[in-house]
Amino acid sequence: MAIITLLTDFGIQDEYVGVLKGVILSTDPKATIVDVSHGIPPQDVAGAAYMLKSAISYFPRGTIHVAVVDPGVGTKRSIIAALCQGHLFMAPDNGLLEPVLRSGGDADIHRVENEALFRHPVSRTFHGRDIFAPVAGHLSKGLSLNAVGPGVSVDDIIPLDEWGPQHDSTGEFVGKIVVVDSFGNLITNIHASDLSALDYGLLLITVGETTIRGLAESYAQTSTSDPMAILGSRDCVEIAINLGSAAKALKAGVGDTVRVAMLSSA
Amino acid sequence: MAIITLLTDFGIQDEYVGVLKGVILSTDPKATIVDVSHGIPPQDVAGAAYMLKSAISYFPRGTIHVAVVDPGVGTKRSIIAALCQGHLFMAPDNGLLEPVLRSGGDADIHRVENEALFRHPVSRTFHGRDIFAPVAGHLSKGLSLNAVGPGVSVDDIIPLDEWGPQHDSTGEFVGKIVVVDSFGNLITNIHASDLSALDYGLLLITVGETTIRGLAESYAQTSTSDPMAILGSRDCVEIAINLGSAAKALKAGVGDTVRVAMLSSA
Amino acid sequence: MAIITLLTDFGIQDEYVGVLKGVILSTDPKATIVDVSHGIPPQDVAGAAYMLKSAISYFPRGTIHVAVVDPGVGTKRSIIAALCQGHLFMAPDNGLLEPVLRSGGDADIHRVENEALFRHPVSRTFHGRDIFAPVAGHLSKGLSLNAVGPGVSVDDIIPLDEWGPQHDSTGEFVGKIVVVDSFGNLITNIHASDLSALDYGLLLITVGETTIRGLAESYAQTSTSDPMAILGSRDCVEIAINLGSAAKALKAGVGDTVRVAMLSSA
Repeated sequence: MAIITLLTDFGIQDEYVGVLKGVILSTDPKATIVDVSHGIPPQDVAGAAYMLKSAISYFPRGTIHVAVVDPGVGTKRSIIAALCQGHLFMAPDNGLLEPVLRSGGDADIHRVENEALFRHPVSRTFHGRDIFAPVAGHLSKGLSLNAVGPGVSVDDIIPLDEWGPQHDSTGEFVGKIVVVDSFGNLITNIHASDLSALDYGLLLITVGETTIRGLAESYAQTSTSDPMAILGSRDCVEIAINLGSAAKALKAGVGDTVRVAMLSSA
Repeated sequence: MAIITLLTDFGIQDEYVGVLKGVILSTDPKATIVDVSHGIPPQDVAGAAYMLKSAISYFPRGTIHVAVVDPGVGTKRSIIAALCQGHLFMAPDNGLLEPVLRSGGDADIHRVENEALFRHPVSRTFHGRDIFAPVAGHLSKGLSLNAVGPGVSVDDIIPLDEWGPQHDSTGEFVGKIVVVDSFGNLITNIHASDLSALDYGLLLITVGETTIRGLAESYAQTSTSDPMAILGSRDCVEIAINLGSAAKALKAGVGDTVRVAMLSSA
Repeated sequence: MAIITLLTDFGIQDEYVGVLKGVILSTDPKATIVDVSHGIPPQDVAGAAYMLKSAISYFPRGTIHVAVVDPGVGTKRSIIAALCQGHLFMAPDNGLLEPVLRSGGDADIHRVENEALFRHPVSRTFHGRDIFAPVAGHLSKGLSLNAVGPGVSVDDIIPLDEWGPQHDSTGEFVGKIVVVDSFGNLITNIHASDLSALDYGLLLITVGETTIRGLAESYAQTSTSDPMAILGSRDCVEIAINLGSAAKALKAGVGDTVRVAMLSSA
């Protein structure tokens, strides 16, 4: 009884997600389908990549994660399926899976080319329905990953442009806001593991003209109106305001630069 | 183990959809429930009719499709349940099911009148919860369609006003935009089967002051800013813009006329 | 095979709800998870309390209702789990569960303190994922409520401020709008049971400068433009407009006062 997660930019106003589930259940009636999100901004491959990487460890091993943010649908771009860290993944080969596949452990990666597994006729506009859904259904019924198509190396897949935080010439981390969540929290791509050697109390986190000292331990720790920095649920640096929206207060949004420096302890 | 799909105008902000599922699972704890959409604009019976017709073939035979867009709730309007093309359907008798029931094959249609199957007391405002959900649960447990109420002919049900595209006096197809999806694609009611005798390359598709020649093969085929016409995932003519919103660019929306003519090939 | 319902203010744009489900299914792969709503306004504990109370009776006995609207996450506030009226509940101890636990019947209430049941490390920002989800999974697998932590009395939990309608000095009921649903209906906290001794036809319902006489029996009963009062699907007084939005027409919203008086029948 496999779990299949779905992560798309389809929204939920239309029938697209329901149709995807119909095709999965037509192939594997016993699949348990879980929505991770369908609220990725249209064509935001990087946003989907960050979200997927954040979500997978909370699902049991053996889960099949299907991520369809696919601006190249209908072109020659390929689709990849991979086994990595005990989870299975399917996504267009457009960078979406790169952070996961490079995040540790060997990855067994295949191009999805076995047309016998597809729904026919395959449309030019909706491979989610015609390729991703039926192949995911076959995988959840136990099909071997080898059967979907030829293996490739992680170096053969399309990279995601510049997805991690960078060091600049002064030694500061330069990251960015990758999502504004529904509470207005500004979630960055700066992960706890990037900061592991640093003293959290001495960090200076800057977004726009606001600089915050240190990391808070809970949203409710500070007074209502002050922005705080905190390691949020993705284990990444977040800028938040207790009972408020940091996005509104700081007029900040996706793509804005966030810098992390460290006070001299001397 | 039956699948029950839900298609409503309830939205997902409120508890209404959850309550519907609670009642279904109270009747049949083994039902697999799939949301097609709860984002139908309030009382948009035609929008629900088009969406339902687009979605059903992607579900396995035996699926029960429950569609509740019900401006007449609490009045004398009846509720119908039907078997058609191997699928079961329930909806208010307000036109919602007509396109499906007329789309080919015999339909076995019944009025839902067996009050022993309802949840009591039956409210005047929420038949989704008190009639549709429990009856769907009984059907998914195997209840015969005959048991829900007396049979009627397809000619006895309420028709959906003017749901297909029309020919005007010049021979052009005159259809309309029936939904704007979350990508901003303008989906019409002009189906591929309406165009089957025509040469796709010679079509002229007009919406407002924009005329497009021919049908594209993929969203990514054209440059970013030009509107294209394409057979979309519903197999209907769609006006789209690669990586953009046709709705915004053309300032077009639901109800707008779309005309399809053919260039003389001479 | 237990049902677990989820009611949160997480929204569905982000991965939070999906992650919650991943953790539940990691603990109990057979759980059936149903979304009641994730559209509670951020930190609206009272809105969640009203919605939960409205929804529970539509689920089968034995259902586990997990409600996470948790402005105090990461502070010393406790989490409670309770058995009441045959259903199980989990929520922060912030008033969310009080209306349910006081609504009749004995409640067996426990503080959730058994850390062996939690996901570790427990974050300071997302107890939904690290405490609520795994404990719910253990309960759905049959864990005794006694095992989650020490029992407490209903008088030991945090009350919800002023959640029912009040009588003023003239004998009128003074309630308020607690939610505006997606149809624009104004749902109050005045329940049918509050009005049980009254003659519905003689009621005067006032919101802002609009006074409505009597309760309608269905949305479609009145002409399109007149506001009506009706007992809605929560069995509470609702102000509605047939085929329209009462919220827009009356410019009314959450928190606005609604008064119910009775005409002298003399």
